[in-house]
Amino acid sequence: MSFRVHVRVMPRTGLLDPQGLAGAHALSVLGFAGAGDVRVGRAIELELAAGSREEAESEARRMCERLLANPVTEDFQLDVEAR
Amino acid sequence: MSFRVHVRVMPRTGLLDPQGLAGAHALSVLGFAGAGDVRVGRAIELELAAGSREEAESEARRMCERLLANPVTEDFQLDVEAR
Repeated sequence: MSFRVHVRVMPRTGLLDPQGLAGAHALSVLGFAGAGDVRVGRAIELELAAGSREEAESEARRMCERLLANPVTEDFQLDVEAR
Repeated sequence: MSFRVHVRVMPRTGLLDPQGLAGAHALSVLGFAGAGDVRVGRAIELELAAGSREEAESEARRMCERLLANPVTEDFQLDVEAR
């Protein structure tokens, strides 16, 4: 079976996020007064061949732990969608 | 009212995505044989004060069009969540 995996990798809460600060500043300069607490991370999408949804999730989790996310500074969320 | 906005900005389908290619190569080297078509974009989260969900969505869409996404090379998806 084939799955589409959506990964969201975000800087861990409490850690400084310079990209987020820059985004918040730029939004404010552009007149978006209601915006705050901007955080910027990575969105990753991939195709994954696996025998079941559970297997796909577990494989995607291992990918995040080994490569896609930095375990010290980032958290990740997975969303696995059957094709 | 306060909303949490999740934005996913991805390279437009068909455009070259060097980060995605690098990710696909690294996953393959690490032994994740089932992975393919890796695309890497940005995940952005922000707080937004707005009068209604519709207003928050429309404001977030304008933020993407003016700053958060490149209209030539990227597509974005919004998810607005009431707090």
